[in-house]
Amino acid sequence: MTSTLGVGMVGYAFMGAAHSQGWRTAPRFFDLPLRPDLAVLCGRDKEKATAAADKLGWRSVETDWRALLTRDDVQLVDVCSPGDTHAEIAIAALEAGRHVLCEKPLANTVDEARAMVAAAARAASRGVRSMVGYSYRRVPAVALARRLVEQGRIGEIRHVRASYQQDWIVDPQFPLVWRLQKDAAGSGALGDIGAHIVDMAQYLTGDLLTGVSALTETFVRERPLPSGDGLGSVDVDDAALFLGRFAGGAVASFEASRFATGRKNALRIELNGSRGSLAFDQERMNELEFYSEEEDPDTRGFRRILVTEPTHPYVGAWWPPGHGLGYEHSFTHQAVDLVRDIAEGRDPVPSFADGLRVQLVLDAVEKSAASGSWHTVPEE
Amino acid sequence: MTSTLGVGMVGYAFMGAAHSQGWRTAPRFFDLPLRPDLAVLCGRDKEKATAAADKLGWRSVETDWRALLTRDDVQLVDVCSPGDTHAEIAIAALEAGRHVLCEKPLANTVDEARAMVAAAARAASRGVRSMVGYSYRRVPAVALARRLVEQGRIGEIRHVRASYQQDWIVDPQFPLVWRLQKDAAGSGALGDIGAHIVDMAQYLTGDLLTGVSALTETFVRERPLPSGDGLGSVDVDDAALFLGRFAGGAVASFEASRFATGRKNALRIELNGSRGSLAFDQERMNELEFYSEEEDPDTRGFRRILVTEPTHPYVGAWWPPGHGLGYEHSFTHQAVDLVRDIAEGRDPVPSFADGLRVQLVLDAVEKSAASGSWHTVPEE
Amino acid sequence: MTSTLGVGMVGYAFMGAAHSQGWRTAPRFFDLPLRPDLAVLCGRDKEKATAAADKLGWRSVETDWRALLTRDDVQLVDVCSPGDTHAEIAIAALEAGRHVLCEKPLANTVDEARAMVAAAARAASRGVRSMVGYSYRRVPAVALARRLVEQGRIGEIRHVRASYQQDWIVDPQFPLVWRLQKDAAGSGALGDIGAHIVDMAQYLTGDLLTGVSALTETFVRERPLPSGDGLGSVDVDDAALFLGRFAGGAVASFEASRFATGRKNALRIELNGSRGSLAFDQERMNELEFYSEEEDPDTRGFRRILVTEPTHPYVGAWWPPGHGLGYEHSFTHQAVDLVRDIAEGRDPVPSFADGLRVQLVLDAVEKSAASGSWHTVPEE
Amino acid sequence: MTSTLGVGMVGYAFMGAAHSQGWRTAPRFFDLPLRPDLAVLCGRDKEKATAAADKLGWRSVETDWRALLTRDDVQLVDVCSPGDTHAEIAIAALEAGRHVLCEKPLANTVDEARAMVAAAARAASRGVRSMVGYSYRRVPAVALARRLVEQGRIGEIRHVRASYQQDWIVDPQFPLVWRLQKDAAGSGALGDIGAHIVDMAQYLTGDLLTGVSALTETFVRERPLPSGDGLGSVDVDDAALFLGRFAGGAVASFEASRFATGRKNALRIELNGSRGSLAFDQERMNELEFYSEEEDPDTRGFRRILVTEPTHPYVGAWWPPGHGLGYEHSFTHQAVDLVRDIAEGRDPVPSFADGLRVQLVLDAVEKSAASGSWHTVPEE
Repeated sequence: MTSTLGVGMVGYAFMGAAHSQGWRTAPRFFDLPLRPDLAVLCGRDKEKATAAADKLGWRSVETDWRALLTRDDVQLVDVCSPGDTHAEIAIAALEAGRHVLCEKPLANTVDEARAMVAAAARAASRGVRSMVGYSYRRVPAVALARRLVEQGRIGEIRHVRASYQQDWIVDPQFPLVWRLQKDAAGSGALGDIGAHIVDMAQYLTGDLLTGVSALTETFVRERPLPSGDGLGSVDVDDAALFLGRFAGGAVASFEASRFATGRKNALRIELNGSRGSLAFDQERMNELEFYSEEEDPDTRGFRRILVTEPTHPYVGAWWPPGHGLGYEHSFTHQAVDLVRDIAEGRDPVPSFADGLRVQLVLDAVEKSAASGSWHTVPEE
Repeated sequence: MTSTLGVGMVGYAFMGAAHSQGWRTAPRFFDLPLRPDLAVLCGRDKEKATAAADKLGWRSVETDWRALLTRDDVQLVDVCSPGDTHAEIAIAALEAGRHVLCEKPLANTVDEARAMVAAAARAASRGVRSMVGYSYRRVPAVALARRLVEQGRIGEIRHVRASYQQDWIVDPQFPLVWRLQKDAAGSGALGDIGAHIVDMAQYLTGDLLTGVSALTETFVRERPLPSGDGLGSVDVDDAALFLGRFAGGAVASFEASRFATGRKNALRIELNGSRGSLAFDQERMNELEFYSEEEDPDTRGFRRILVTEPTHPYVGAWWPPGHGLGYEHSFTHQAVDLVRDIAEGRDPVPSFADGLRVQLVLDAVEKSAASGSWHTVPEE
Repeated sequence: MTSTLGVGMVGYAFMGAAHSQGWRTAPRFFDLPLRPDLAVLCGRDKEKATAAADKLGWRSVETDWRALLTRDDVQLVDVCSPGDTHAEIAIAALEAGRHVLCEKPLANTVDEARAMVAAAARAASRGVRSMVGYSYRRVPAVALARRLVEQGRIGEIRHVRASYQQDWIVDPQFPLVWRLQKDAAGSGALGDIGAHIVDMAQYLTGDLLTGVSALTETFVRERPLPSGDGLGSVDVDDAALFLGRFAGGAVASFEASRFATGRKNALRIELNGSRGSLAFDQERMNELEFYSEEEDPDTRGFRRILVTEPTHPYVGAWWPPGHGLGYEHSFTHQAVDLVRDIAEGRDPVPSFADGLRVQLVLDAVEKSAASGSWHTVPEE
Repeated sequence: MTSTLGVGMVGYAFMGAAHSQGWRTAPRFFDLPLRPDLAVLCGRDKEKATAAADKLGWRSVETDWRALLTRDDVQLVDVCSPGDTHAEIAIAALEAGRHVLCEKPLANTVDEARAMVAAAARAASRGVRSMVGYSYRRVPAVALARRLVEQGRIGEIRHVRASYQQDWIVDPQFPLVWRLQKDAAGSGALGDIGAHIVDMAQYLTGDLLTGVSALTETFVRERPLPSGDGLGSVDVDDAALFLGRFAGGAVASFEASRFATGRKNALRIELNGSRGSLAFDQERMNELEFYSEEEDPDTRGFRRILVTEPTHPYVGAWWPPGHGLGYEHSFTHQAVDLVRDIAEGRDPVPSFADGLRVQLVLDAVEKSAASGSWHTVPEE
């Protein structure tokens, strides 16, 4: 008889749907020490939250997130609400002894992120766990890339080349939604999608960025208000580009853009090392490209590994070789790993500290873009 | 308050897991007129069936499929057991007034398939629905290809080029499992994966094969017995190749193989028409290649459509553009369409008659391979 | 001081231009024991031949090919005229003690081809050499594929999958040129481009086809006469498809089509063996795909070898890695190998006997297509 | 009777071989108003120069480039010697009334480049022409990309993403050749291959970079001396990365590296505009990818244009569709365009002024890398 892990989720939009699918599906394909119980969904609008809970499969509803911290059937709080609410909810939950899964970015400011890291450290000493939701780490091809780096298959890393390209606001008539307003969103492409490639680069290399040089741009500066009443100003970046250096000596380039016409969700990363290279593109998420310098010169070449073999990370629980996974599978993997970490008493990764390290880079990027000069990334 | 559709599923192996995920996930992303109730899983071994039901999320268990036909909470029987059981179960279920979803191939013999078609026709006249599980039709890229053919975007079709390539038995030490024995499996690569490309070719063209010329081959004729006691004979095909003609004038080539080293689940099809071409590869299932003869000569070329846009079939219910789907999503789509057809009183496709048309082709292929000459495919 | 090899070329159309570039360029990049001398171009129309010679760089002109056989400055006759002239010219040249390079197909009929093989054998005994122009063998990626097969890198071959797809007559208004008339061209897609894939399949496997099953089709049966005076009948195939078996046990499929809309010069071949696979597409002629079953399961995958390394066949004479070659380079390689063979007293490949083996297959294909049954390919 | 254009070439290494092939081949495929005469090859070592002239097809030799300026049979000086000699030779040749083709980079310093521009302007007023050898502009796919930009097919350009990746010095035991020494080479990857992507970006956009932010790195700082006597210091960059802004508002990233393991000659550029995108990779030089925002949403996607159609730039003179070109063809196109410009009295492009604009960017990159801050590119 498996015990359950009661989950209370705050928020129910895009990320809420993805997390729900993760919690629901994890025990159907993986053997888990605790079975997730989709106990309660929390949203401010009772009617909408009730409809969402019904659709997404949650068995009760709350309208105040504080209520989750006192319910006996909630052992974990899953924070899927906007970034400016993360710190308050996550810190309170940890202090109330609830494990926390917090969507990325960890917070909208470095100060909030630092406070969350401190709270996570205090909680960990009491066996309360926390994880930040950089779920792309759990795409099998990405996890395989990390495994190959750890095995030394590409040697000492010299180049990191990362970009996250989308194109959903290329049309200047696309309205001024909340994601294009600094008050609500914190930043534009940088915090939304740039955060993912910074985390992935630091994860794959096992190294940290020490400095950056950046530029940001807003191509369309006025857009129709969603209300229909004329135009409003866009005050976040449409694109952010930066160069960086890693502690271990690698140089790096990053680009996050919502104006890469034709690129829909092109999270791409390439690493070049002294012994080989790796390349990944989320638009072909079941593939990893690998080049090994150590092979026979006649037959060297980038190979397309179809990351669907039973020996590949997470894949054994799913389908036979060649039967690919989709976007939401990484949320299942996230749930699986977190449940196991909780049951087995391990601190999960990516930790809040990992989340802070991303925020520190993004902060340095903004400062560099403003000053036009190189900016050092603080260590913590 | 949505009514439910009680489902009883027979079998719980590979297809059972895929169907379970389909039934479970359908209402979480799609608005359905009836909510599937995973009422009962049926398997001969009570202990194993109980474990499977617990894992896959079914709320009760039966060990005799006949029990499903009298339970009030079962309105639909989902047949995921081996091919030699399909006819008996499906016909009985239809006669008992239960809708039937039957995995492919429809049956192991043409005679059984014909009996099933007759039963389906009788049932349909009483409002009882049936569908055969050629689920690849519901991969969004495949459904989009069909839409483009229907719109005349590639004109009159001249070439169909289809192959389904796997490599899981390349190693001669791979044991003589049931799929490599004719008694159990009916045929080898031909019935297992060849069936899929025949159905897909007939679906995409909207046309039927009228004749074939075939060869089959068994490369490794003896394999270790699973028991470990020496070798046994392989009496099914490792590979089947055939040429064909469609009623509408297209010529076609087909290949199904389990010896295509390095190809894991490469279901590929290409159509060349008078106005354009389409190409699909299941290993890159979120993409469709399309060439239009009618464009500007300077910029003509095969374009890679990322089939993840809200206007694409089924996609609007899932994620934003560029966030791909995986193998099991087509089983969700299958459940969605079947539930809607039942609720709205339509006969689903692919019908049992469509399933029979595949069996007729496979039968002609076997006869042609045996005789070394062209063989006509009967109309029904 | 290098001696010269005087060349007399018959014909100056597409192939004449390619051969001229080959003769002219060979000594500029390769060290040759004899320097080709573009001595004389032969064409029936003196004015046109003179213009062609001037453009293509030949220093004299003849209007009767027989004149080449008595000129002291011609040691080699390069036959680039239409297929129905090959036998007469080649046999006469060999008998006159001139080495012969004969464009493919070797002849329009098997009987002619057999006579040419006999003449070549007689000539060889006197040190007079002959080669048939299956130049795609000398694309570096193809030559590398052969090297890997010879090294056993893909093991025992089970599948050969070859197609040559073009689309230049998809438009039904395309006129009835000589290539679409049986009297002039012998056959349609089969002899023109199907010949190439038959030769390449036999070359890469080092094996011979023993039987075939075929169909041919003419999609557009009437086309505008070039004269503008109404329509004429197309009496050659637009497409030819066939299955085959190799002596060594491999099964094969072939397709040659001029109706593969969007495919321009897609000569593709894939070999699957017990230890690995190889794939080539002439539209990406600088690449070879290779899969090795023997690698680490985590990192197996088709690798894209950029065939531009100094260790690759022919490549060392050209540019640094990554700087690709083009279509006509294989004609330079053909000239290089032939000159060296002549100087060093070796019989060149592909020989006339190799050319006959292609003709025997094409002949069997036509017979099988007519009869609708399997047809054996004679050994010689 | 066509007049000739006498060419004297200085240098005979990699670029000398490429230029020779260009001059030799141009009249064989294109109709030219003047036929190039490979009159004289100039090299300091008489023996080596004589051997090179014999191999490459030049009819005489000089050991002092000044001799070319007085020979009656030299109307054009083709400067293929190292960068530090360009200014002196080119200026003297122009003043002597000889047309000049000068390999890139135009010069090793901005001051030299400015003097060359002034000399070219004076010469142009006397009908003496000059061109700098950014030959990649004349790859058909690149020229087609420019055509599409000019036609407005991608609209207003927002992103330019360019990289030139090679890997020939990844091995730390690769010796300290002259290209890795600042005295001889001026700079490392930046001037050698970074120059190409700066020119291509400015060419394709029709716009100029106004400022940059850069970093450079030398990964392997000591290498074996070619003499074998111990190690020497590498004092040029192994990699250079920079961000930039164009006058028209586009943002850009550039990377030039000799440490991109597995990338052999990966000159890649992508442009994203308000109406579409273009992408090119020199490793697949016969292809151009094009995305048009204005198409039907169902069928939008990056299309692979095989740039081998008769309507494509330069292609009509070569082979039928699908028969690709190779690296050296752009040198033929360069010769063709230059000969026509000379005959028809036009100033060629890229001009020396275009070459200077590249040098100004490279100079700003070096200054920015040294200072760690944004650096403005002067207008001339």
